[in-house]
Amino acid sequence: DVSFDPKEHQHLRYNPLRDSWVLVSAHRMKRPWAGQVEKPPEEHIPRFDPRNPLCPGNTRANGEINPNYDSTFVFENDFPALQPDAPDPGSDQHPLFQSKAARGVCKVMCFHPWSDITLPFMKTPEVVKVIDKWAELVEDLGSTYPWVQIFENKGAVMGCSNPHPHCQVWASSFLPNEPALSDRCQRDYHQKHGEPLLLQYAKQEAEKKERVVVQSSHWLAVVPYWATWPYQTLLLPRRHVLRINDLTAEEREDLAAIMKRLLTKYDNLFEVSFPYSMGWHGAPTGPHLKEDNSHWQLHAHYYPPLLRSATVKKFMVGYEMLAQEQRDLTPEQAAEKLRNLPEEHYKSREE
Amino acid sequence: DVSFDPKEHQHLRYNPLRDSWVLVSAHRMKRPWAGQVEKPPEEHIPRFDPRNPLCPGNTRANGEINPNYDSTFVFENDFPALQPDAPDPGSDQHPLFQSKAARGVCKVMCFHPWSDITLPFMKTPEVVKVIDKWAELVEDLGSTYPWVQIFENKGAVMGCSNPHPHCQVWASSFLPNEPALSDRCQRDYHQKHGEPLLLQYAKQEAEKKERVVVQSSHWLAVVPYWATWPYQTLLLPRRHVLRINDLTAEEREDLAAIMKRLLTKYDNLFEVSFPYSMGWHGAPTGPHLKEDNSHWQLHAHYYPPLLRSATVKKFMVGYEMLAQEQRDLTPEQAAEKLRNLPEEHYKSREE
Ligand SMILES: O=P(O)(O)O[C@H]1O[C@H](CO)[C@@H](O)[C@H](O)[C@H]1O
Ligand SMILES: O=P(O)(O)O[C@H]1O[C@H](CO)[C@@H](O)[C@H](O)[C@H]1O
Repeated sequence: DVSFDPKEHQHLRYNPLRDSWVLVSAHRMKRPWAGQVEKPPEEHIPRFDPRNPLCPGNTRANGEINPNYDSTFVFENDFPALQPDAPDPGSDQHPLFQSKAARGVCKVMCFHPWSDITLPFMKTPEVVKVIDKWAELVEDLGSTYPWVQIFENKGAVMGCSNPHPHCQVWASSFLPNEPALSDRCQRDYHQKHGEPLLLQYAKQEAEKKERVVVQSSHWLAVVPYWATWPYQTLLLPRRHVLRINDLTAEEREDLAAIMKRLLTKYDNLFEVSFPYSMGWHGAPTGPHLKEDNSHWQLHAHYYPPLLRSATVKKFMVGYEMLAQEQRDLTPEQAAEKLRNLPEEHYKSREE
Repeated sequence: DVSFDPKEHQHLRYNPLRDSWVLVSAHRMKRPWAGQVEKPPEEHIPRFDPRNPLCPGNTRANGEINPNYDSTFVFENDFPALQPDAPDPGSDQHPLFQSKAARGVCKVMCFHPWSDITLPFMKTPEVVKVIDKWAELVEDLGSTYPWVQIFENKGAVMGCSNPHPHCQVWASSFLPNEPALSDRCQRDYHQKHGEPLLLQYAKQEAEKKERVVVQSSHWLAVVPYWATWPYQTLLLPRRHVLRINDLTAEEREDLAAIMKRLLTKYDNLFEVSFPYSMGWHGAPTGPHLKEDNSHWQLHAHYYPPLLRSATVKKFMVGYEMLAQEQRDLTPEQAAEKLRNLPEEHYKSREE
């Protein structure tokens, strides 16, 4: 009998935040790749481009002029997927043709006045300002909306159409699928085990160490046991924190530092400005502020698409769309690779 | 008060096969696109390429030589994500570190000996041979495996690394997430409403007509009410059919014809060999053959990524990954566009 080796033998792992399974087939990395390669990201981005609607002082699609901002800058998305005043669709009543009203706001948030800078190159106090602004938006929009989704699409391969460092904040009148599922999973776990799922998980991972990428006194970044994307990470506070606006000044400063370390490692992995989608999940807001949300733990997900190099991504296609997500290296292999990378950015070393 | 217009006012629609919601924000199509454009697919593919491991008579990675096949040809994937003999991982027992054994087989199936042909250009009897082989594989592999996933990744943008017309068949010792969810949804619906979900749905859509793309005496292709991808379709038999191997000869011939019509319309939409991932879902097999699966209805999903043109796709990124799927045109708009396209292929017209 052969003994089980996760790097050689495919197996399933359970994702307790989504109540689903991922197929881990690490031996698949051996296959050669003759398929699509992505264009590497643009290397020479001008610091200021008079035609870029995100730069200070420029005019946007709706005719508004951006202020000469020198830190973060938030404005309404000129092409929002959610608007505050959409009428109710009513309902066909047939169970197979159900619709519901959706209302909300979509905001864009620039991180910095320069187009040619990214988070790992920003100074820690500048990143703290980004975190403070996130907290402020969750506080404000969350006073009425049940869900405030902060997310960043970075890189053209992740559908980002503007190189200027920015994220988006979409607040909605409904709890979207992903947080609704995560809410249910965390609630069930808490009821069954008496402790928040992600608080228990962070403690376990800090002890086990094999999936840790970076850690600090208040934070922990791991490739989760159930990671789907090749170099996916989960960023967790060590203390029980419900929402980003509950973070103390010290925790925010520590968060800025660990984000810079994590993102530097990401860039160093394939020596490229690493593409990803990331976003924050915290306890629901609006009407949920009055409820007991002690099963929740604040966390950020990083979903980077690259698998083999700066230009070869993992395709989540046929089998993944129709049957089950599948990965080509173990989470432990990914964590080890990231952990062992230098914390100095490859571009600083070049200079 | 403004009255509700699905093309102008965002709203949520319920997907009864996945028990989740999609955000429909059709007014988003108005925004300009300055982001990533894909490379259009290679136009000049040689009919035979001596280095292509899928062509008749060529040698594959493992040294095996393909026969000089003249119809379909099935072989074991040389880099399988599932192998029949992987040992059991055992379990850490901790609820946050759960793993399970996964066993199976991965097969590749060529549709035709020529590399430069696609399904819409194959003759109906040639497509019938593809369907017959699908049925045979479900019959054979399904005699022991609980799930047999037939899927086709078409186009480099869908991670397909070989232009030769082919699909894959992965059989597994477990019921993957997607069919497990669909099984639960169809079962609940059947219990509640006394009729299979998709049988009732096909009847409703055939009457309503606004989401129908093509239909024939035995089949119906619609852009489902809850479509996620811009031009997603659902292909359904009109009769209650559990699995692809239950189709009669007449139904198979009719299926071949409607597939050719649907795929011709797809190619005509942006005048490009249309990329997609597609796959079949039918009642589970293996140990489930003995169970009552009358809640199931056989169907195929087509998930094409293109949104605006041959080179601009829909990015399912940030908000979609972290919160909820979102679409930029209504399913009715997509269906109308596809329905009104000619059934003669744009390439035949050119010649
Ligand atoms: O098996 P292939 O065609 O090499 O690979 C393709 O399909 C697989 C199944 O959907 C995916 O896991 C891969 O990411 C994709 O590139
Ligand atoms: O709003 P953007 O950046 O133009 O658009 C990008 O992010 C959105 C939210 O994830 C997606 O719906 C779009 O497909 C993507 O291109």
